[in-house]
Amino acid sequence: MSILKRIHSPADLKRLSPSQFPPLCQEIREEILGAVSSVGGHLASNLGVVELTVALHYLLDTPTDKIVWDTSNQAYTHKLLTGRREQFHTLRQYGGLSGFCKREESVYDTFNAGHAGTGVSAAFGMVEAREQLGQRHKVVCVVGDGAMTAGMTLEGLHHAGGLGKDFLVILNDNQMSISKNVGAISAYLSRTITGEFYGKVREETGQLLRKIPHIGPDMQKLARRAEELAKGAILPGLLFEELGFQYSGPIDGHNFEHLLPTLENVLKMKGPVLLHVITKKGLGYEPAMKNPVWFHACPPFVRETGAPAKKAARPSYTQFAMDTLVKLAREDKRVVAITAAMCEGTGLTAFEKEFPDRLYDVGIAEQHAVTFAAGLATQGLKPVVAMYATFLQRAYDQVVHDVATQNLPVVFAIDRGGLVAEDGTTHHGAFDYAYLRHVPNMTVMAPKDENELQHMMKTALQHEGPISVRYPRGVSLGVKMDPVPTALPIGKGELVKDGTDVAIIAIGVSVWQAVQAAERLSQEGVSTAVVNARFAKPLDQELIVGLARRVRYVVTVEEGCKMGGFGSAVLEALSDAGVTGATTKVLGLPDWYIEQGPQDLLRERYGLTAEGIYQSVKELLGKAPVQADRFNDGRLVHHLPHGDEQGS
Amino acid sequence: MSILKRIHSPADLKRLSPSQFPPLCQEIREEILGAVSSVGGHLASNLGVVELTVALHYLLDTPTDKIVWDTSNQAYTHKLLTGRREQFHTLRQYGGLSGFCKREESVYDTFNAGHAGTGVSAAFGMVEAREQLGQRHKVVCVVGDGAMTAGMTLEGLHHAGGLGKDFLVILNDNQMSISKNVGAISAYLSRTITGEFYGKVREETGQLLRKIPHIGPDMQKLARRAEELAKGAILPGLLFEELGFQYSGPIDGHNFEHLLPTLENVLKMKGPVLLHVITKKGLGYEPAMKNPVWFHACPPFVRETGAPAKKAARPSYTQFAMDTLVKLAREDKRVVAITAAMCEGTGLTAFEKEFPDRLYDVGIAEQHAVTFAAGLATQGLKPVVAMYATFLQRAYDQVVHDVATQNLPVVFAIDRGGLVAEDGTTHHGAFDYAYLRHVPNMTVMAPKDENELQHMMKTALQHEGPISVRYPRGVSLGVKMDPVPTALPIGKGELVKDGTDVAIIAIGVSVWQAVQAAERLSQEGVSTAVVNARFAKPLDQELIVGLARRVRYVVTVEEGCKMGGFGSAVLEALSDAGVTGATTKVLGLPDWYIEQGPQDLLRERYGLTAEGIYQSVKELLGKAPVQADRFNDGRLVHHLPHGDEQGS
Repeated sequence: MSILKRIHSPADLKRLSPSQFPPLCQEIREEILGAVSSVGGHLASNLGVVELTVALHYLLDTPTDKIVWDTSNQAYTHKLLTGRREQFHTLRQYGGLSGFCKREESVYDTFNAGHAGTGVSAAFGMVEAREQLGQRHKVVCVVGDGAMTAGMTLEGLHHAGGLGKDFLVILNDNQMSISKNVGAISAYLSRTITGEFYGKVREETGQLLRKIPHIGPDMQKLARRAEELAKGAILPGLLFEELGFQYSGPIDGHNFEHLLPTLENVLKMKGPVLLHVITKKGLGYEPAMKNPVWFHACPPFVRETGAPAKKAARPSYTQFAMDTLVKLAREDKRVVAITAAMCEGTGLTAFEKEFPDRLYDVGIAEQHAVTFAAGLATQGLKPVVAMYATFLQRAYDQVVHDVATQNLPVVFAIDRGGLVAEDGTTHHGAFDYAYLRHVPNMTVMAPKDENELQHMMKTALQHEGPISVRYPRGVSLGVKMDPVPTALPIGKGELVKDGTDVAIIAIGVSVWQAVQAAERLSQEGVSTAVVNARFAKPLDQELIVGLARRVRYVVTVEEGCKMGGFGSAVLEALSDAGVTGATTKVLGLPDWYIEQGPQDLLRERYGLTAEGIYQSVKELLGKAPVQADRFNDGRLVHHLPHGDEQGS
Repeated sequence: MSILKRIHSPADLKRLSPSQFPPLCQEIREEILGAVSSVGGHLASNLGVVELTVALHYLLDTPTDKIVWDTSNQAYTHKLLTGRREQFHTLRQYGGLSGFCKREESVYDTFNAGHAGTGVSAAFGMVEAREQLGQRHKVVCVVGDGAMTAGMTLEGLHHAGGLGKDFLVILNDNQMSISKNVGAISAYLSRTITGEFYGKVREETGQLLRKIPHIGPDMQKLARRAEELAKGAILPGLLFEELGFQYSGPIDGHNFEHLLPTLENVLKMKGPVLLHVITKKGLGYEPAMKNPVWFHACPPFVRETGAPAKKAARPSYTQFAMDTLVKLAREDKRVVAITAAMCEGTGLTAFEKEFPDRLYDVGIAEQHAVTFAAGLATQGLKPVVAMYATFLQRAYDQVVHDVATQNLPVVFAIDRGGLVAEDGTTHHGAFDYAYLRHVPNMTVMAPKDENELQHMMKTALQHEGPISVRYPRGVSLGVKMDPVPTALPIGKGELVKDGTDVAIIAIGVSVWQAVQAAERLSQEGVSTAVVNARFAKPLDQELIVGLARRVRYVVTVEEGCKMGGFGSAVLEALSDAGVTGATTKVLGLPDWYIEQGPQDLLRERYGLTAEGIYQSVKELLGKAPVQADRFNDGRLVHHLPHGDEQGS
């Protein structure tokens, strides 16, 4: 680690000679491999941009010059070169470095990101700010070819190309999004790289020229013109030229002899420039090169073999959801599945294997994914959009405007609902109850365990309108599975445990925590009921309101934001029914962006474990202006000071 | 009206000879002009697609073949030809025909829309459904050039181009979005039409050839090849070819001799095809051709002159918001404004006139608009995103993921918050309180009148984080304006009227309705307080909770969805503070999509007028299990049957 250790900021990098870059890159790869093998992370993408990052920080004057990393899941080298090497072992851990760019973390981080396709827009905002403020620094955006399918990226290129200000976009083309690439742009870029068109046209022209005996200067000029046309027009960057960008490339993104002079050159060019750089995902680590999809965002692994460091104790919720989907798809040909470049993450690989023609990977294009599903549904198909809660945010208007207005039977299989751990702020599924439940016609479900999950998948697929099933990241509970998935009645919750003092109304992953809390409370003489709500919408008003009328305290629990979420729905129901006697308490995620950290630790921190729920109830009992007496039957009776004795 | 009257369905159209189409189109234009001049609507876009619509219904076998109208604000001719001529006078009125496509209205309407850019995705869903179901009908999507800047459209084209199924996309190019077009794609389309590139290259090639004395057949072939390259590659449709579409056009969209044979031809082609049709917005009505922006979506007008039928009694909220913005922008150079193709609708024209370099029209690209603003804000600028509440839905993730995570000072000037009248379902601003208030770091405001609006604009521009001001469509109240806009304290509401029995907590346009209701109630002896909340977030907990502790009934009022909205925030605050004594009632929009109709009528229907609020409170008082006695001081005291006498 002799070179890297001497780099405390990009200024130190500038003191190196370029001949030291290859060994430096070797050290960087070692550092990345060391950290990611032990904590997990975005390995393949980061190994692919080591040289590019070194070259950029060598040539640019950061942080005055701005680098915007689209998605910012490829910024590990950037972190190592900008004074964060010593903390690098804390990567993605609670209180440690983020796996993404964070302005709070470093002045070299210009924009926070975690969702793909925001980079060009953000960077172009910085370009126009520079113009408004009369500054002269450079703005560079590095965007992957996967994010080129995001409509937002195209919106940004279109705007930037139209205005014509100095702006360098580097297309980091590793021929992958997260999954293998799909669609026309990918095909276009491949043609660009292979030079298929160019080769063909040049060959044709050459043949013609060879047939002509005497070539004068005019003829040579014509031939050159034809070649130029073939090269400059069809090949390789016309798509970008049409969007108003000068195109340069493609160049080898791992070769400093190409990278440095080309970058130096394009940084001097005026107007919007797109530099096409070809990189290899996972470069320098054989297992990642062989399986870049698995190593896109991987758990801890054994460095020597590339095998996962530990096997999950039980199958994940994801797997149960998708296994059920495959089972149901066998029975109903109308079932099709849609993913936005997340076939593996959402567990659709088994579906794809069995029904390749019924699986649509639309690329990183969540908006299109949802409206495309709406289109399918109008014709009687049963589309299932499998998407993480955080990414469905991008298709909120498509849910509101395209699916739900028409009451179309689109199923949203919402993975990673709730806390997601290491990916942190940008990836927690904190808002889905809140952004879905106010949408008319929507049905919003979350299962208490994997068995209920299979029933909810069945429920969803036979429902006649838009419906979502939300399940968490991570392993399932290990409960007994019913042999056959069976539809649940819409809007009916389940009284898991009855009680007369306190009612805990929980949903999803929080239900079993609530049950444990309730058992402890009941053992201590606080008769506690637990409702598994199942539906955040429509709420089981009868069950919940009925229970609320009988108890003193109503506590709601969800792994989602408290504001406007499930608990808020319960409050609305109680208000609507005119229930005023019970003291209410909403447990859930607070009104700030949740940090990264292990799920268990975060659940503990936000009071969503059995212990946390228990403590909240105890606090509520203690805080309330009551004296509690123990009666013979073990239940508490509270004497309110001003005589509020509405019977239970 | 001799021809049109005989057309009850497209089958009748097929019985005509094409020579009858021009007079038919004349009749259709008359019909459209008659209806729109009296009720308002999307005039210019509809006048531009009369011939195209006739040609499509003549050649296609609808409804088996599917036509998807992107945005569907150009479907009046389609409505007239598909059995809705007799109801056409009810267009856009309460209970009448929608101004957009509605599947509920006709089997010929294949997809509901109102937001731009959803057509290609929806139609391609229908294409793939056809393939899944082994059917053979045609699917045609008509999309305007304005919607080509929407990322979603590009996502859809990209997906469709990659899969290669038979699919006709008709680019209806009228060189306008809603405003004049912007950006690189627009420039590209213009070049396509003018043939600038093609002409230049052909000329160059010709000059070369003329210089060569003896041209043999090989040379001719080479010349042809160069011309082909120039024509086929640079011109006119390479952008679409690169996206996997065969390109055809451009053709004159008003000339049946071009339209019919070309359409017939492209409908026979295999794979994805893009037909580029040039049309003229407003064709056939001189004032609309001269001012297509005003006539894009216009109020009732005088047929003879094109002048608005009546002048607004008072300036709109929009105008007050934007006048204030201009005023504040004079004092602070950092203020820049962003619109997504709605410069006129959002009232930014005055800003553009005074600060042309500080106004960004990004095209129909809401996602980019918001993240671009975030990028500007990172550099110390003060971006103001002016957008309708319904369109900001499209940038929900950009608010959550790009602006609010970084606590960036982006101002959202949210126009058309609440009920919008004739545009109906897809355009009401029903959800913005609900989708914004759970976003961490957001401040959510709504003024009670235009004077408070100017103060809120000032508040927004001096705030250090993301903040929104929501104001309604329509004329202001006519209150006295303070001479200078002054910042309000964040999170502080206003006790407009004190009272001891009932507290009405209202926000925005509902405040003055609440005041009127409260005055009437107080006159009748029900002492009623009114709070102007000003902030849906952060809520003035001190004021609201303090008041709630003193009264029997808390009623909230908002012009937004009840679920998860402002009222829900009040319930959360009361729960949080442990207030249980008061009976609560949330007034707002119900859990369905609100129909079209005049604002006043809809407000009445949903109980959001002074009368409605008064009635709700009366009902609440009557329903509650209380006996009310009048005391000397005029306030009511309620004796609850089970002794709930928590003091006020």
